[in-house]
Amino acid sequence: MPLGERSGDKESRYCGVETEFNDDMPQLLSHSLSSAGFDFVVATLMDPAYRPSLMQKDSGGSGALPFAGSDLVLSPSQWSSHVVGKISSWIDLDSDDEIVRMDSETTLKQEIAWASHLSLQACLLPTPKGTSCANYARCVNQILQGLNNMQLWLRIPLLKTDDDSMDVDSNNLVDSWELWNSFRMLCEHHSQLSIALDVLSSLPSTNSLGRWFGESVRAAIINTDSFLTNARGYPCLSKRHQKLITGFFNHAIQIVISGKQVHSLPKGSTDLASNHNDSSSDGAQRHPLRPYLDYVGFLYQRMDPLPEQERFELGYRDFLQSPLQPLMDNLEAQTYETFEKDAVKYIQYQRAICKALQDRVPDEKASVITTVLMVVGAGRGPLVRASLQAAEETGRKLKVFAVEKNPNAVVTLHSLVKLEGWESIVTIVSCDMRHWDAPEKADILVSELLGSFGDNELSPECLDGAQRFLKDDGISIPSSYTSFIQPVTASKLYNDVKLHKDVVHFETAYVVKLHNVARLAPTQPVFTFTHPNQPTMKSNQRYKKLQFEIPSDTGSAMVHGFAGYFDATLYKDVHLGIEPLTATPNMFSWFAIFFPLRTPVFVCAGSSLEVHFWRCCGPTKVWYEWGVTSPCQSPIHNSNGRSYWVGL
Amino acid sequence: MPLGERSGDKESRYCGVETEFNDDMPQLLSHSLSSAGFDFVVATLMDPAYRPSLMQKDSGGSGALPFAGSDLVLSPSQWSSHVVGKISSWIDLDSDDEIVRMDSETTLKQEIAWASHLSLQACLLPTPKGTSCANYARCVNQILQGLNNMQLWLRIPLLKTDDDSMDVDSNNLVDSWELWNSFRMLCEHHSQLSIALDVLSSLPSTNSLGRWFGESVRAAIINTDSFLTNARGYPCLSKRHQKLITGFFNHAIQIVISGKQVHSLPKGSTDLASNHNDSSSDGAQRHPLRPYLDYVGFLYQRMDPLPEQERFELGYRDFLQSPLQPLMDNLEAQTYETFEKDAVKYIQYQRAICKALQDRVPDEKASVITTVLMVVGAGRGPLVRASLQAAEETGRKLKVFAVEKNPNAVVTLHSLVKLEGWESIVTIVSCDMRHWDAPEKADILVSELLGSFGDNELSPECLDGAQRFLKDDGISIPSSYTSFIQPVTASKLYNDVKLHKDVVHFETAYVVKLHNVARLAPTQPVFTFTHPNQPTMKSNQRYKKLQFEIPSDTGSAMVHGFAGYFDATLYKDVHLGIEPLTATPNMFSWFAIFFPLRTPVFVCAGSSLEVHFWRCCGPTKVWYEWGVTSPCQSPIHNSNGRSYWVGL
Repeated sequence: MPLGERSGDKESRYCGVETEFNDDMPQLLSHSLSSAGFDFVVATLMDPAYRPSLMQKDSGGSGALPFAGSDLVLSPSQWSSHVVGKISSWIDLDSDDEIVRMDSETTLKQEIAWASHLSLQACLLPTPKGTSCANYARCVNQILQGLNNMQLWLRIPLLKTDDDSMDVDSNNLVDSWELWNSFRMLCEHHSQLSIALDVLSSLPSTNSLGRWFGESVRAAIINTDSFLTNARGYPCLSKRHQKLITGFFNHAIQIVISGKQVHSLPKGSTDLASNHNDSSSDGAQRHPLRPYLDYVGFLYQRMDPLPEQERFELGYRDFLQSPLQPLMDNLEAQTYETFEKDAVKYIQYQRAICKALQDRVPDEKASVITTVLMVVGAGRGPLVRASLQAAEETGRKLKVFAVEKNPNAVVTLHSLVKLEGWESIVTIVSCDMRHWDAPEKADILVSELLGSFGDNELSPECLDGAQRFLKDDGISIPSSYTSFIQPVTASKLYNDVKLHKDVVHFETAYVVKLHNVARLAPTQPVFTFTHPNQPTMKSNQRYKKLQFEIPSDTGSAMVHGFAGYFDATLYKDVHLGIEPLTATPNMFSWFAIFFPLRTPVFVCAGSSLEVHFWRCCGPTKVWYEWGVTSPCQSPIHNSNGRSYWVGL
Repeated sequence: MPLGERSGDKESRYCGVETEFNDDMPQLLSHSLSSAGFDFVVATLMDPAYRPSLMQKDSGGSGALPFAGSDLVLSPSQWSSHVVGKISSWIDLDSDDEIVRMDSETTLKQEIAWASHLSLQACLLPTPKGTSCANYARCVNQILQGLNNMQLWLRIPLLKTDDDSMDVDSNNLVDSWELWNSFRMLCEHHSQLSIALDVLSSLPSTNSLGRWFGESVRAAIINTDSFLTNARGYPCLSKRHQKLITGFFNHAIQIVISGKQVHSLPKGSTDLASNHNDSSSDGAQRHPLRPYLDYVGFLYQRMDPLPEQERFELGYRDFLQSPLQPLMDNLEAQTYETFEKDAVKYIQYQRAICKALQDRVPDEKASVITTVLMVVGAGRGPLVRASLQAAEETGRKLKVFAVEKNPNAVVTLHSLVKLEGWESIVTIVSCDMRHWDAPEKADILVSELLGSFGDNELSPECLDGAQRFLKDDGISIPSSYTSFIQPVTASKLYNDVKLHKDVVHFETAYVVKLHNVARLAPTQPVFTFTHPNQPTMKSNQRYKKLQFEIPSDTGSAMVHGFAGYFDATLYKDVHLGIEPLTATPNMFSWFAIFFPLRTPVFVCAGSSLEVHFWRCCGPTKVWYEWGVTSPCQSPIHNSNGRSYWVGL
């Protein structure tokens, strides 16, 4: 049964147990699930004594392979819901001994074939024995090419020696992530190859651990040896372990308890968490690993409830969306509806407008001077409302022009103005701001044309067009904005882009709620635009070269692309943005943007990453190009905007 | 006019001259071509004083760009045959100064547009100014996307500091190949981006130079400063320079003379080479660079004539062919015809058979013992003939079975036997050797089933099948064979494979006459097969891990794939093969094989390359898989033989 409940989390979390070989599968299942409360077993499928090279001599071809039970001993749904197949741990495909290699390949293929026959959801592949894993990877890669839906979990110990300097010349593997990386590169990022992490008693640095959250980790195996003992004699985990497990829960990673009971509980003790009321647990012998399961359940249940906004956005996690083309396309009502609900954003706008109004008109002249404010891209009116509220709040007199190019939104604007009785203050202009012939000049120009990457919805081009009707000393809100990027590991996003099997999708930027992602370095600013664009109208083309230093305790890392954000100065100290360190809290209008790389870039521990971003402008479109020049050269992505562009 | 003639070479070689800006193009052309004998000029297209940022203020939009002449001053064919456009050398797209960057981009695009308008064959792009060239590459890459047939020659000085250790921490570029490599990687190996090498007075090491022969070098620019002076006061080149120029001629690389006259010739001297009889040269002023052209012509004319075999194979150079499937398909008569002409091969076979016959039957029993020899895969009979000649040469008595599965070849065999009167000695068997029920066992089994990679035409599987009818102490000719590989730079082959835009072609091995290729390390053996395959029939699956050390004076290099060869021991010391160091001279039956890499692998100076090759066997096919694991991990190529296989 699932690990209790966490308030607001719809997905359940499960906990399994790793078992020894037992050819009585029903007994094994009943002992581990019904009586102990585990959700699934990670069970050895084949007698560990089996070696194909010995069999051939003995059996004469008539014998069945020594699997644990036939497919009939459990129901199909029991096999597929409750059993993860554990591949024989003795196999060593990169052994120097050719017979061992051959035996290993035969056994691996037989066991996977058996597991497929049983429709298991996953098999656990043993950790590669040495630092070299090419033949193992070749064999697994062959299997993956013809596999049904089964996942293969490669077991990787969570291991990294942080003091790399000592081992720099030795052949000892100091970072198990590199072993995983070699294996998956050889298997070409296959989406059915994922990871089961062996959590050991000591943990690598936080930066090093962080990398795994950008990888396809499906299970975390916690050995009973990794548990501490609390004052009452019960198993518990260190603070760092607890934090890690919480991270696993947040990333839908299943927990597996492994090993022998190493905590002897005080007699007659009750369960730490009392939500397990199995009828069988009284009579049958208590499962020795039950206290560990209880502790894991306790960790899950005491997690903070998911905030409402996060809960709402669960379905968007790591889901690639094409950015809007608000200039070429008209937004739909639903889109306006969603964005208008973002109260925080409009509060910031209102604060900025208040300050601008106060700067524009001193208190003593508030009743005589009328400020001309133009909302360019008024949509269905939220900024008109914010402007009028700011005028009211500051006691300034206001004349508002609401300029909107979408005739459908203009309909709503008209009814809003009528409904609110704003007819004397607000003039609605159904026109593209770039072509409007304004009857007078504005003191304040207010717009919300920003995309996830700031300028990516062509705010600069629109505002340059609107600048004609802003007074020379007029104010633009926003007054400036800057885009930011950072390199990320994002194997899920990479695989989702790769599914399309073309270059176009690898040269497109996506709007995405980043979750299964490792942020490898602090963000850096890319392009800045300032409004009004003066004194001479500066070109909106931009070029930026950036150098990212990945913290040395991270170890080596794989860069699948760049996460992009923006921060905008609305007016003076009032800002708005999604750059992680400075993000405006509780604002939900923007997810991040993701610029993929056609070939993931491996960055060696301690080395830096050099990347170039261009913003290019043509007569009918604007586009980005990007490319990596260190540690290796990627092709320039999206040359001439061939794959992705924003229409003018 | 072309550089005289070299015996047997059908292609002409040309020599051009780099000129200063001159807006009288007809005069420039007449001076350089008609009166001096150069074949083309590398001419600056735009007034060097031009800067777009200055123009805008001055001209007011009405002025024409300051190009050298209008398109009408030369005929279209003069433009396209005799002029290479030289792009303004001041441009610097990676300048820190934004105005310089913008001016450079504008000018570059204007000049390329002009050169395209004139249908020039090529433009010479100036050397990147610093070590960083990303913005330059981005701009050139944009141009390449929409370019007509014009080539862009990036000018690269032939420069490499061999003592890397001193500069390891500095930012000084010590290897101009790396600059080229960065640039072309950013431009994604575009086939219209090629190289013009600036040959300087001192040359890098031979290994370092060798890399360029795997790249797309179109021109070599030799500055007059690089010439020495011979005893008679004439310009000449050092031995190493001469060898390099000869190499350029062999690779159809055009020569360009650049610079000022630095050799003042003795008065009244005659031409070193007297093949230039221009009528205009008496009256007009003699071109100051004529002696350099004469010397280059002299170097070309004194080259050894191309051997007949090489001449025959000219058309096959760097041309990708799919390997034969001789087991699944029957060869055509033309193919037999070609292979039978390879006298050297059959002489080696005859020598091997002689030795085997002598070992089998001592001289004193020559007249009483009849040796049973089976030719398996007899084709149209060349090995039958070689066997009978060996019997005659050694005075041994022979009984021959000629086994052939191709019924069309069997027709020819029958008529051959009748024609030669061999009916009493030779029995023809129309059957696949793997299924033949032989009436007796053979003393000697002779076959020629080898492909360019040895076992790649399934010789092991065929001979394992034929082994049933070989006596226990019988001899197989060949008795063993080994495949070899070495990493190569082969940008032309890479681009030809890439043209197909699919994975299949990158996972196929090709038979190819390697020419435009740099061999980066000595070959290493891969798979060995021995016949008879005893005592227990060993599996024909193989796995080999290889580590290549690229000589440190080579510098960094790009690996586009692996060249493959074989060497076979026919019998005892008689061998046959195409492995470059030990290749049988004057044998033409086999070109090399080429295993491409889906993504070229960059190997840093002094580091090694680790590669894995597998020979995999299934019930109906045999295939190779391959992959690189160091310095980075490639995907495993051709998993399960999905792209390339040989049918059983």
